[in-house]
Amino acid sequence: MQVSYASRFDGISGSAIRDIFKLLTNPSIISFAGGNPASSALEPGRISQFAQEVLAENGVNILQYGQSEGYAPLRESAATFFRHNAVEARPDQVLPLAGSQQGLDLICKALLNPGDAMLVESPAFLGALQTFKLYQARLVPIEMDEGGAIVEDIERKIIAERPKLIYLIPTFQNPTGRTLALERRRRVAEIARMHGVTIIEDDPYCDLRYRGEALPAIKSFDKGDNVLYLNSFSKIISPGLRVAAVVCTDEEMMRKLVVGKQSTDVHSPNLNQAIIDRYLRSGLLSEHIELICASYAAQMSKMLEMLEGFPESVRFTRPDGGIFLWCELPEGFSATELLPEATRRGVAYIPGDHFYARPGAHHNTLRLNFSNASLENIEKGMLILKELLIEKGL
Amino acid sequence: MQVSYASRFDGISGSAIRDIFKLLTNPSIISFAGGNPASSALEPGRISQFAQEVLAENGVNILQYGQSEGYAPLRESAATFFRHNAVEARPDQVLPLAGSQQGLDLICKALLNPGDAMLVESPAFLGALQTFKLYQARLVPIEMDEGGAIVEDIERKIIAERPKLIYLIPTFQNPTGRTLALERRRRVAEIARMHGVTIIEDDPYCDLRYRGEALPAIKSFDKGDNVLYLNSFSKIISPGLRVAAVVCTDEEMMRKLVVGKQSTDVHSPNLNQAIIDRYLRSGLLSEHIELICASYAAQMSKMLEMLEGFPESVRFTRPDGGIFLWCELPEGFSATELLPEATRRGVAYIPGDHFYARPGAHHNTLRLNFSNASLENIEKGMLILKELLIEKGL
Repeated sequence: MQVSYASRFDGISGSAIRDIFKLLTNPSIISFAGGNPASSALEPGRISQFAQEVLAENGVNILQYGQSEGYAPLRESAATFFRHNAVEARPDQVLPLAGSQQGLDLICKALLNPGDAMLVESPAFLGALQTFKLYQARLVPIEMDEGGAIVEDIERKIIAERPKLIYLIPTFQNPTGRTLALERRRRVAEIARMHGVTIIEDDPYCDLRYRGEALPAIKSFDKGDNVLYLNSFSKIISPGLRVAAVVCTDEEMMRKLVVGKQSTDVHSPNLNQAIIDRYLRSGLLSEHIELICASYAAQMSKMLEMLEGFPESVRFTRPDGGIFLWCELPEGFSATELLPEATRRGVAYIPGDHFYARPGAHHNTLRLNFSNASLENIEKGMLILKELLIEKGL
Repeated sequence: MQVSYASRFDGISGSAIRDIFKLLTNPSIISFAGGNPASSALEPGRISQFAQEVLAENGVNILQYGQSEGYAPLRESAATFFRHNAVEARPDQVLPLAGSQQGLDLICKALLNPGDAMLVESPAFLGALQTFKLYQARLVPIEMDEGGAIVEDIERKIIAERPKLIYLIPTFQNPTGRTLALERRRRVAEIARMHGVTIIEDDPYCDLRYRGEALPAIKSFDKGDNVLYLNSFSKIISPGLRVAAVVCTDEEMMRKLVVGKQSTDVHSPNLNQAIIDRYLRSGLLSEHIELICASYAAQMSKMLEMLEGFPESVRFTRPDGGIFLWCELPEGFSATELLPEATRRGVAYIPGDHFYARPGAHHNTLRLNFSNASLENIEKGMLILKELLIEKGL
């Protein structure tokens, strides 16, 4: 059939990354490409137990239609859980979501008209960039350094571009692993308030800290209800269950998000929300997070140790947590062009250019994920990568 | 915070119906307002058993990230299941969804620009109307009679309004319970092909037939890949699990739907898809459907029997299945205005005006749901309604 598609799809193929991931269904490839938790961090037995319990206790309600606002017990337990990130919210200010990505979609739905400006980190999470592009946002990159997004640049661009939204992953950012410094958190909240701009604080990695002190969320400095705080249970419990939540302290905005959710999927599945609620109330989660942190810390150390063995012209980040490292090859090297040969030799990564709002100028960068590869495979995969780069003249 | 919301929210409150449903949390009210399956039709024990089995057999994959295209076994079992509606599709032409509502959202995302025309039944499913309005569709009502949407009117309006989409619930329509006649199904598919228009065939009630012969889906007459076929497991298994699927035989359209899904929620939760897949493969579903049909048929008969006792000036539909009846009061009566008094007396319904693309002119209509009320409550609630109407001069 010949149809004309919506103009929001102009220039959206969704294919570059999808093609990489399809390639990775080959199990013999060591993949540093995804953002998956370790399979060993997943707990089918425990989740099955929780599913049985909630269905035995409250089965008919769980299988019946639920509310767009979310499963009430989870709104409560999530509000309590988020306090350890210094996010204070009442249960009715927490909206459970089918993953954080849905939060991005609903926030854009509530706020963006085509052509509205939006500030994004440079580089930024590519899944978020795709959502913003589908809402025809005019993406304005923010400069970053080792301390995360540069606040002076944010303020300059707020004044010049009048954005509606600022999108930040302040802790162990995807793709760089960088963390927004404490003082910058305070200042960016203040600047957003002064200029009436909304911040999306996307915080799925905050519990995966391997060293240093936890930092309070930007949301904790939010005096004008300008910050929408997204957190997810994908990295600490299970991505396949698709449960996250947004904290929204502005009542009118919450109403828009709920109406958007109602018209998008009616409500999130009750069973998944009840399982996460049960986990949060079980008292078992902090121990589980400690366990996965110990393991991811060792994986990160191994990957950093291997990178130390690369020629000095390769630069890379040294995060305090999360699941990603970011590498810059010398100018002239193209991670995009090297990928097919790398995968032929058995190792994959994501070329960094995909993480830029304006791609085409960052082919010398790449993102490496360490959470879903064994120490042995990290060693093996990084050696393959090093050899390949040296052969190519590094 | 003062923010300017997206213009797609202009004129959308989402509140009228939400307020009615909030009122219904009062358990002493007999509700004919919702669209819920009977609580007795839900099977927590069986679902718990399936959850245990799939987590025991394939737990790590189920809890890990899945694919935007859906859980592969479900794509296959759903394709097989849809054959009994004469819908023939390969597994890769089936996209699992988080409920049919998500299908409406993704189809609009793929196709609609603001102001694009769209034909909708008059009256039409109000949840769908809200989604279409959020995509700023120009809604054009189609005339209906006892045989469903009138095909001549559809063709006339295709020529006059150049719509991109036609939205139909051909079987036991929400809200009227009407079924699109066989010959009209063939003709509407042909007309859509001739004019290059896409039909959304929303078919969640087709398995709830209490008399008469099953009719083939419009999709079965689709020779040009113009029909997107939506089916849901909400009414026959569980709405709280949020699993539905769209059959899309056009490859380019499927790619848009998948990219839209990826950017909206990454993928549907694997556990829910695996549970439904297990149910479809168990061989137990047809027996379960027979059981609920027997019960719903008795409930519908009871409600029709009660309506027969109303003064003759009340007109109502006599569906062959589904979960809704549609009533027309004499001109001058307002179901909208009567609702507060009806709920005070202990019975609720949805005023029919909400189901029109252009509300304001149909206050004498109402929708009655019978699937979630006992025979006793149907008798009691309908007597309350009858008394109220007679008091008001019926």
